[in-house]
Amino acid sequence: MKPGNDGLRIVLVAARNPLNIGAAARAMSNFGFLRLRVVNPYEVAFREARSAVGASAVLASAEEYESVAEAVADCRLVVGTTAAGRRELQHPLRRLEYGARLIRQQLGSGRVALVFGSEKVGLSNQDLSHCHWLMRVPTRADHTAMNLGQAVAVCLYELVRDARAAGQPQKPEPATAGEVERITAVLLEALRASGYMSPRSAAPTEEKVRRLVRRLQLSAGDAELWLGMLRQLLWKVRSKS
Amino acid sequence: MKPGNDGLRIVLVAARNPLNIGAAARAMSNFGFLRLRVVNPYEVAFREARSAVGASAVLASAEEYESVAEAVADCRLVVGTTAAGRRELQHPLRRLEYGARLIRQQLGSGRVALVFGSEKVGLSNQDLSHCHWLMRVPTRADHTAMNLGQAVAVCLYELVRDARAAGQPQKPEPATAGEVERITAVLLEALRASGYMSPRSAAPTEEKVRRLVRRLQLSAGDAELWLGMLRQLLWKVRSKS
Repeated sequence: MKPGNDGLRIVLVAARNPLNIGAAARAMSNFGFLRLRVVNPYEVAFREARSAVGASAVLASAEEYESVAEAVADCRLVVGTTAAGRRELQHPLRRLEYGARLIRQQLGSGRVALVFGSEKVGLSNQDLSHCHWLMRVPTRADHTAMNLGQAVAVCLYELVRDARAAGQPQKPEPATAGEVERITAVLLEALRASGYMSPRSAAPTEEKVRRLVRRLQLSAGDAELWLGMLRQLLWKVRSKS
Repeated sequence: MKPGNDGLRIVLVAARNPLNIGAAARAMSNFGFLRLRVVNPYEVAFREARSAVGASAVLASAEEYESVAEAVADCRLVVGTTAAGRRELQHPLRRLEYGARLIRQQLGSGRVALVFGSEKVGLSNQDLSHCHWLMRVPTRADHTAMNLGQAVAVCLYELVRDARAAGQPQKPEPATAGEVERITAVLLEALRASGYMSPRSAAPTEEKVRRLVRRLQLSAGDAELWLGMLRQLLWKVRSKS
């Protein structure tokens, strides 16, 4: 768990569908936020979710509350989620990209509650009045309402996403220049032996092939495979001549 | 739909659970990617998902294929998804944050297939061999495997998220300086009338109160409310003196 993640409380209000409660808990476990609070869940749904095969530790340790006020009482920032567009909002509404940044900042110094409403009606105005501001996932205007478990997953993903990772490819170790040149040499040898290169055009062709091989940007592992294949081809070409 | 979104094909391979197929289609609709392709879905599951109440247009227009090769044949980039960690991968593995950037770039000029495996086993090595590279959602090492519908939602969210939105608060219209000064004036008047300010300390206190009111950073709407409340208080205080 990242430092700070332990400060987030996911609060599900009046959740109705055991599959959604289970899905929310699974996303929490996936992204390393393990503290679930449920407010007046439909009792059968909550019991079913808890007893489902593979139900996570998140569900086992979930805390039950009878009101939003009690569920968020120890949090310094309370953020509601909404599909918006549905009614006049009395709160500042922030896009997930920006809201998550504010939540991450607050998690450095205190607990934050992220509150999700029921599948059918979302959060009531009464629920919303406990929130400092609201956050919405940037869905398209024609279809704003997300599935509860998916909304939880997307919000938590945004909290753990690493902006730096967007610029850093996880490339395999590239081949060394020596390995690339060994490949080039074997390839050239095979091309010569196969009659691809005429003695007159040998030098320009050699340079062309050398550049061609470098443009492959081979990884160390792939370089080894290519070297093996080309050596085999070279052997074959030579044995025929 | 954003330009480019129409070029993405979401490919579900051997999906088994109608709820997951429906959830994937719903996330697609939420984020504006409407082209679903299914490869050998469990027939009953696919039929059930399609006929479910509220099934989206995405499901109605989904295309069926018998092999991954056919389902991705017209795409210029084929990206597989994986929970990783499960086996030795023969492909470059990219984190979602970076992979999504590459997909967005490619969508500018050609079709891209984003391939998801079945709930139980993910993509087979045979399926993976059709992919240029693999992408993984940055889940925690102890619990990497995501629910299919949630994985689709998170990947598509990353494709539509707007990096610029992370820095731009959507603040309500702030109050004008004139409105703020009107509040200050009424507050000062009420403080004077109530005996809070002694004649000697009036000037420094006035400045303190002026700064205090500005630190509230009131919105235009809230400013109006405060003005109304303070005027009422002022009226009451005056009527008592």
